[in-house]
Amino acid sequence: MTTMQLSTLYGPVAEDMILVEDMLESIKRDDLPPLKRMLDHVLQSRGKRLRPALVLLSGTFGDYNLNKLVPLGGAIELLHTASLVHDDVVDGALSRRGRPTANAVFDNAMTVLLGDYIFANAAEMVTRTGSLPVTRLFALALQKMTRGELDQDASAFDVGKDIQNYLARIAGKTASLFANATEGGAMLAGCTEGEIEALRTYGYSLGMAFQIVDDILDFTGDEAEMGKPCGSDLLEGTITLPAMLLMERYPKDNPVKRFILAKRDRAERLQDALAMVRSTEVLEVSMDMARSYIRRANEAISQFPATDARRSLTDIGEYVLSRRS
Amino acid sequence: MTTMQLSTLYGPVAEDMILVEDMLESIKRDDLPPLKRMLDHVLQSRGKRLRPALVLLSGTFGDYNLNKLVPLGGAIELLHTASLVHDDVVDGALSRRGRPTANAVFDNAMTVLLGDYIFANAAEMVTRTGSLPVTRLFALALQKMTRGELDQDASAFDVGKDIQNYLARIAGKTASLFANATEGGAMLAGCTEGEIEALRTYGYSLGMAFQIVDDILDFTGDEAEMGKPCGSDLLEGTITLPAMLLMERYPKDNPVKRFILAKRDRAERLQDALAMVRSTEVLEVSMDMARSYIRRANEAISQFPATDARRSLTDIGEYVLSRRS
Repeated sequence: MTTMQLSTLYGPVAEDMILVEDMLESIKRDDLPPLKRMLDHVLQSRGKRLRPALVLLSGTFGDYNLNKLVPLGGAIELLHTASLVHDDVVDGALSRRGRPTANAVFDNAMTVLLGDYIFANAAEMVTRTGSLPVTRLFALALQKMTRGELDQDASAFDVGKDIQNYLARIAGKTASLFANATEGGAMLAGCTEGEIEALRTYGYSLGMAFQIVDDILDFTGDEAEMGKPCGSDLLEGTITLPAMLLMERYPKDNPVKRFILAKRDRAERLQDALAMVRSTEVLEVSMDMARSYIRRANEAISQFPATDARRSLTDIGEYVLSRRS
Repeated sequence: MTTMQLSTLYGPVAEDMILVEDMLESIKRDDLPPLKRMLDHVLQSRGKRLRPALVLLSGTFGDYNLNKLVPLGGAIELLHTASLVHDDVVDGALSRRGRPTANAVFDNAMTVLLGDYIFANAAEMVTRTGSLPVTRLFALALQKMTRGELDQDASAFDVGKDIQNYLARIAGKTASLFANATEGGAMLAGCTEGEIEALRTYGYSLGMAFQIVDDILDFTGDEAEMGKPCGSDLLEGTITLPAMLLMERYPKDNPVKRFILAKRDRAERLQDALAMVRSTEVLEVSMDMARSYIRRANEAISQFPATDARRSLTDIGEYVLSRRS
């Protein structure tokens, strides 16, 4: 997605996003050369900054104060970055979106510390909002994220987990930070309890849909754009919604289960598993689930007047469902 | 050091330390079995809880409110624990104080996430103090710690660093959290600016002495009690004060430099380096530096009335200088 398209998507807050970018830039100004090099590497890939945009958009429904909203947006993006940095170490991933990961360039030890340093900066940045309740919410989101990641790692290669477990896992791993962005933005803007709850539900539901689509794309996405081969999740033993649905609906002699439990011929068995997921209805069933989360997200914000910001939130839901990488 | 001795050392706050212990216990009650197992492992080794004791002792110089002081004490101990967990991953250490490290028992990937989870719990706990300034100070301490660790790792095997660099490194790595404990405790107790500054200086200076003694013990300590062989720092390329002094004072044909730059015969060269450090005056010069930090710590708190708590702080300084492991 180009910058042009993003500016359309983020509508009324698109121009203010430069302030988030400036705040992220500011932590790169470090006088320790090896640290500066590492920060440059992990913060240079200008992502979509989706979570900070959600903070600003949510803030438009109350007192839109950028002095508070921008630090929360920056902190959430840093938290997201730190968690990717550690995930890549944990998974031993060597590239992400076509670029070498930090652990590929700098070694695992330094990368663990780099992630910690970015976490610390995120924690410091969130206190600049001046709000202890928002800071507390942020710490709780980090707790849920790391717990979700731990659960995912501990459940790897475990074919006995069900969809409820999957949903709990992605709620922690992904939706909690999206919810934190919208709830925190609304709190900083002094929204009412009801408005805060509505925006929290929007963020949470959007996050759930986002992760489900991410997990679908691991079976169907454009490998070049994703910068990784299809089937990466299964290869790591991470059993996501489509794979779970397949095992549930076709319990006998299931190729996903065979791959997960296989000790040999793994490459071939992986292709069998991918092929069956792609040829059955499970991807469409998964997509339906993502769509229903987006419906829930839109319902939650239907109480707000039809502002440009509300339209942006709806557009972001559409974008999440339509992305191809 | 036995519990008995600790209760003497911590004087007026010794009994209240059980509340910190309870708070640390509370985060182990987790319903995710693998996470619970890991938390049990890293939190079961009842350490001295020196940093939380400093929080409570500092709090006695103002309004001694345990509802605020205990969460800060717990948070600081968790931060310390999380940082040890990650350090052991980074160093590939398999035992600490005679017990297997988390990464030795659970694998590196899970241990990185475990550390993150403990960081998150620390961040949540500090917000229970109800003080945004103290929460912010805590985030800044984490920033300084991780930056110090990064600097140490990036400087490994670099014989060109000087004592000023060493002091900056240990100020970040160790003294910042000690300073955070005493400064934060004083802030929560509503002490005056002057009192807060005095307690901050005490904590900082104590932390500097603590780390210098730690670094001396790597040359002279009781291997059984430390649970690791002498020379572990040099083996990892970490050049501490005694080694630096030796290189500075005996620049010609120096055995520390020879070991650090050696490609072969490392075991033998390490013994040469240890022997020369032990046989020269550099250990005593290092110890003098630790003593002068303790003097500075005591001077800082001399403005307070001679309460039991102030006596405890002085005793802790003595203890730091006299420990053998």
